[in-house]
Amino acid sequence: MSVLVVGSVALDSVETPFGKVNDALGGSATYFSAAASYFTHVNVVAVVGEDFPHDQIEFLKKRNVNFDGLNTKPGKTFRWGGKYVFDLNQRETLYTNLNVFKDFDPILPEHYRKSPYLFLANIHPDLQLKVLQQMNRPKLVVMDTMNFWIEGTPESLKEVLRLVDILIVNDSEVRELAQTRNLFSGAKRIQQMGPKIIVTKKGEHGALLVVDGKYFWAPAFPLEELQDPTGAGDTFAGGFVGYLAKVDDYSQKNLRKAVIYGSTLASFCVEKFSLEKLRNLSQDEIESRYQQFINMTKCD
Amino acid sequence: MSVLVVGSVALDSVETPFGKVNDALGGSATYFSAAASYFTHVNVVAVVGEDFPHDQIEFLKKRNVNFDGLNTKPGKTFRWGGKYVFDLNQRETLYTNLNVFKDFDPILPEHYRKSPYLFLANIHPDLQLKVLQQMNRPKLVVMDTMNFWIEGTPESLKEVLRLVDILIVNDSEVRELAQTRNLFSGAKRIQQMGPKIIVTKKGEHGALLVVDGKYFWAPAFPLEELQDPTGAGDTFAGGFVGYLAKVDDYSQKNLRKAVIYGSTLASFCVEKFSLEKLRNLSQDEIESRYQQFINMTKCD
Repeated sequence: MSVLVVGSVALDSVETPFGKVNDALGGSATYFSAAASYFTHVNVVAVVGEDFPHDQIEFLKKRNVNFDGLNTKPGKTFRWGGKYVFDLNQRETLYTNLNVFKDFDPILPEHYRKSPYLFLANIHPDLQLKVLQQMNRPKLVVMDTMNFWIEGTPESLKEVLRLVDILIVNDSEVRELAQTRNLFSGAKRIQQMGPKIIVTKKGEHGALLVVDGKYFWAPAFPLEELQDPTGAGDTFAGGFVGYLAKVDDYSQKNLRKAVIYGSTLASFCVEKFSLEKLRNLSQDEIESRYQQFINMTKCD
Repeated sequence: MSVLVVGSVALDSVETPFGKVNDALGGSATYFSAAASYFTHVNVVAVVGEDFPHDQIEFLKKRNVNFDGLNTKPGKTFRWGGKYVFDLNQRETLYTNLNVFKDFDPILPEHYRKSPYLFLANIHPDLQLKVLQQMNRPKLVVMDTMNFWIEGTPESLKEVLRLVDILIVNDSEVRELAQTRNLFSGAKRIQQMGPKIIVTKKGEHGALLVVDGKYFWAPAFPLEELQDPTGAGDTFAGGFVGYLAKVDDYSQKNLRKAVIYGSTLASFCVEKFSLEKLRNLSQDEIESRYQQFINMTKCD
């Protein structure tokens, strides 16, 4: 089954203790589709400026990603500049130049509207709503959001939450949205707001899936050196939704496997700058790391 | 096989958002032995004052715990007062009255010296060394420590580290001892200092076992309400070492199971104040929660 993602395509300038890149390919829709494309066909809705180097997404086009929904608008592409210091857990945004992304108006090409799987990346909740309104009853709707919208547009956000099946966010966002320090009661409170399935990303502590009154704990991959954490969350979402779309089933068992596939793809993502490591993974590499994840929680 | 624990027996006054207790039974050796006694015979070395209410440890004596090594000294019992606020992750020490514990001089009764399993609770590293010197080649030595000794007596601590098999500490202590933010390289660095097996307790994020180049991730139990986190770490250690002593084997597989038993006992501990919940657990309760832990990481 195909997946539709609506989000950003950007050019990132990132500095970490391990190096730096300038105007490297980035953006939520980009990371997401790179990861999801290992599992299924992906349709992208995003906007770029006239300066966008289209050759940089050639590798995605060759791998199942359709960019009919990528609009080129007069002006410059969304640019983000950031710096990670010391432990890579703290990031400093140096600049956010929204450019053409400021007026992003997601119009879905006709042939996208029947995509059974939908991922609403971290954009203004009003735009997420607008996307939902154009869809033809998707089978599964997954969304991301961030503190900026939780604090700035809580009413719009609550409207979207009522309409989605799965929320994928960071632990700090669970705490903020649910207004509790406790991640477990936090997930339950958010379930009351709409999404019946909550996936909490906890960085070095792995991920937690809450569904049907059950908890599933996924490890993080024990990387001793991360080069660049940018895009890890969207890559996780891409592996997660991509796997569900591939098997076209979101039973407890497949949701759990999807969390591990998401974690697997995210662990590759952070090993190199930008999307470098996501360009050419083999199925063997993915399956082998997936198995390593499974082995890290085995007791017998 | 029997386990020897050397640590504190104390009277704690604790306040949390859920209530308070005054002069309740506490101390590392107490929590440890309560948990370990569900698996094996435990010998305790500790010191109390003349005011110690010995009737409070009757339930432990009835359950496999030997207190021949509990010295009563003139003066008052070690008292600790603490307060947990809001999220229970932050604790404020209101007072620490060491009293007779200040001059704690662990002398092992003759019949303790052959205990094959030894747990050195969080005490001055010089005392830990003194205990080791009195032992008759134990099969497995496990130790705890804390930031106070890492900062205050690093040389003594390093001497102990060289002589132990397993270090059980919090994630913050791994980072401080290894001087790195990364828990995985941190564990490796500590392995260079002596202990070949590192167990990192991560509170709400579970626990991480590092041994033989392999990582094992254990979940935390999804408790929505903790009454009192005091003693959780020593209870974890008690379940962990107790299980290993019971099966008398610390292969990769049994170490993993031991981490889950430690987590199981710790999850009971925090459900009530002091040692209340550790008084009368049934084997069924323990096994059933152990199985719940296992199920939280199952993918098929």
